[in-house]
Amino acid sequence: MAELEALKQQAAVRAAALVQSGTRIGLGTGSTARYAILELGRRLAAGELEGVMAVATSQASEDLARSLNIPVEPLTPEPLDIVIDGADEIDPQLNLIKGLGGALTREKLVEVQARRFAVIADHTKLVSRLGEKAPLPIEVVQFGVDSTVERLRALGARGELRRDAGALYITDNGNYIFHAHFPENASLASLERSLKGVLGVVETGLFLGMATVAYVATPEGVRELHAGA
Amino acid sequence: MAELEALKQQAAVRAAALVQSGTRIGLGTGSTARYAILELGRRLAAGELEGVMAVATSQASEDLARSLNIPVEPLTPEPLDIVIDGADEIDPQLNLIKGLGGALTREKLVEVQARRFAVIADHTKLVSRLGEKAPLPIEVVQFGVDSTVERLRALGARGELRRDAGALYITDNGNYIFHAHFPENASLASLERSLKGVLGVVETGLFLGMATVAYVATPEGVRELHAGA
Repeated sequence: MAELEALKQQAAVRAAALVQSGTRIGLGTGSTARYAILELGRRLAAGELEGVMAVATSQASEDLARSLNIPVEPLTPEPLDIVIDGADEIDPQLNLIKGLGGALTREKLVEVQARRFAVIADHTKLVSRLGEKAPLPIEVVQFGVDSTVERLRALGARGELRRDAGALYITDNGNYIFHAHFPENASLASLERSLKGVLGVVETGLFLGMATVAYVATPEGVRELHAGA
Repeated sequence: MAELEALKQQAAVRAAALVQSGTRIGLGTGSTARYAILELGRRLAAGELEGVMAVATSQASEDLARSLNIPVEPLTPEPLDIVIDGADEIDPQLNLIKGLGGALTREKLVEVQARRFAVIADHTKLVSRLGEKAPLPIEVVQFGVDSTVERLRALGARGELRRDAGALYITDNGNYIFHAHFPENASLASLERSLKGVLGVVETGLFLGMATVAYVATPEGVRELHAGA
């Protein structure tokens, strides 16, 4: 476990090195993204970096950034030069499952505005097919959630609402999360369209065609992956 | 204005007469739906009706129903025998614009489960084309709302975020509402699909093919309308 943490940190440091002074950056959420925020704070404190402005994908990341004197602003329509975030699964086309950290909607809202979206992970997140290990998190409105879950099941989803210590997990947007598993032969693009179209669904954790590069740390070093390469 | 109120009440009373003892009913939201809830309370108190169970589309309607001793339960996947609700616009196919009362997402979640969905309105809500008078309310996530509005504008929407007394209006689900106008030639079904697919959109106020009957009060009496008739 300590070794995995070291790998996450290596990937995060590699991506954080891409950030240049005077740029607008997006801060991810989760245990790997946390290392990137810490490294950005270190670079700022060391004078290696200056004049950056950040947008955070969760309250937790915003709080961490502020504690490191990284200036945080609300998301505006202005593009972000680079966004650095983890992922729960990464396929060979750099399609992602994200959101097991619970921040999928805010992450997607930020990452869709990224000129460059760098994914950081340890090698255990690489899969040949999304859904191989991780469930797909789907953010759903609280009201009438059992009915929304029935509609998701009608689309082939198996799974449960996410609970933390017994209680239903509530996102920063005040919604629930359904952790879904789908049949292996599901087409990602049509699955994404169908799920987003379901009454009661706010957003899904499928991030298709969004990542531009992935830094994946292995025991042999950090691999740099590009879509389809 | 007093006359319009009388018409709303006539339509509401006519629909409330459809409710039978021992059934599951859905309670709408807004000034016309309010009259239906009041009439159901009256029928229960008078002993004309008993053993009903209600699901409410807003906290306000739930509070009103409880004050009238109408039993209210959370929405479950079980179908509702009848739902009675107002609309902001009604076209000849009984397609609706709803949600100027701010409760569009909960209304849609309830009304999609209706065996019969009775729309009640005064005659000023009849239009030949949706959007003729009313804006289309679109519920959007608060986070990054300016970016979501830009995506809506890219689909042809003009309009503004709803404000009440200067402050941005917040729905029962904790989201904002964008009041949109679209070009006259927009196809309703494809507009609905496109809008729901937009990142940051939770739900739209287009209710297509959902209403089974409309009771529309005119100075000459209550007209009963059926889709395409």
